[in-house]
Amino acid sequence: MAALSYRPALREDVSAEDPARVRRLVESTGFFSAAEVDIAEELVLEALARGDAAGYFFCFASSGEDRLDAYACYGPIPCTASSYDLYWIAVRPQLQGLGLGRELSERVEQRVAQRGGTRLYADTSGRAQYEATRRFYEHCGYHRAAVLSDFYAPADDKIIYVKVLDSDRRRTDGRSHAGGHDLRSEG
Amino acid sequence: MAALSYRPALREDVSAEDPARVRRLVESTGFFSAAEVDIAEELVLEALARGDAAGYFFCFASSGEDRLDAYACYGPIPCTASSYDLYWIAVRPQLQGLGLGRELSERVEQRVAQRGGTRLYADTSGRAQYEATRRFYEHCGYHRAAVLSDFYAPADDKIIYVKVLDSDRRRTDGRSHAGGHDLRSEG
Repeated sequence: MAALSYRPALREDVSAEDPARVRRLVESTGFFSAAEVDIAEELVLEALARGDAAGYFFCFASSGEDRLDAYACYGPIPCTASSYDLYWIAVRPQLQGLGLGRELSERVEQRVAQRGGTRLYADTSGRAQYEATRRFYEHCGYHRAAVLSDFYAPADDKIIYVKVLDSDRRRTDGRSHAGGHDLRSEG
Repeated sequence: MAALSYRPALREDVSAEDPARVRRLVESTGFFSAAEVDIAEELVLEALARGDAAGYFFCFASSGEDRLDAYACYGPIPCTASSYDLYWIAVRPQLQGLGLGRELSERVEQRVAQRGGTRLYADTSGRAQYEATRRFYEHCGYHRAAVLSDFYAPADDKIIYVKVLDSDRRRTDGRSHAGGHDLRSEG
């Protein structure tokens, strides 16, 4: 694969400015309700307050000083042995289609595998508006595990996607790979 | 249906003693992991600390002064229009099979319908040990909406049950029925 012409810096530590940045990013997509935007921000605040114990981990992509271009939030699902949830993944609208979501998704898979995770779940809506989101997950190797009819609202199904992480990847120490990968990781 | 010979008092307010009582009850069933027991207690603490804003509601059954015989915990699923989760339902082992779980389940349905809920979800494990739990949900009118393979652990599937609440019930003001129902409600 040719190098991406757009190459943002990726970082994983959470800073005090990130809750507001995540809010602005998530709002900018136009895909999330006010309640969802609140939750997106809340998870960042939880991680700031409680650290790893909160169970929310992040990958932030930015090309400028004070702006996020994209981010993902994931974490272990409580009371499971090794299942993880990709809670959020969002890319600024004008940067969609450049492969940034895919890069974040791969980074998340790498980190989850390093933490011993074996399955990664992602939920989305069955509504027409989310067609691109569903195609994105399928493109990233997720498959549909279940459909819960009318879950979000009448005529708004919940689609549960899952990606089973391969054991070769789990045996790999991804950290030593990061330098040779086509991702740039900068703190 | 003939009156139950065992008729505990049902109450819905949460008291300061309930977190420890719920812990003892949930532990007594032998069905839940240490992490699950912690979460069961945590939800009661959340409700005590934040009231209705916590989003966790309870129905407690007891026949003695300081002991719970059974309880259920339910609440609205965030970011859904009218879906609820039956997070917990547990009955003390020596009182199982007397219809107490069914009574609690019906009370929860009534309350959810009064709050405008239209769908009630309950998750359980696909393992052999949970056969009675699955039969219980099916007996209460739930049906299987989905199976997530290996969700909890390898060979430990998650079974998602759902019960669609009928609109006749939603139009009923359950409160005015409580006196004539075969449940006793005492605060």
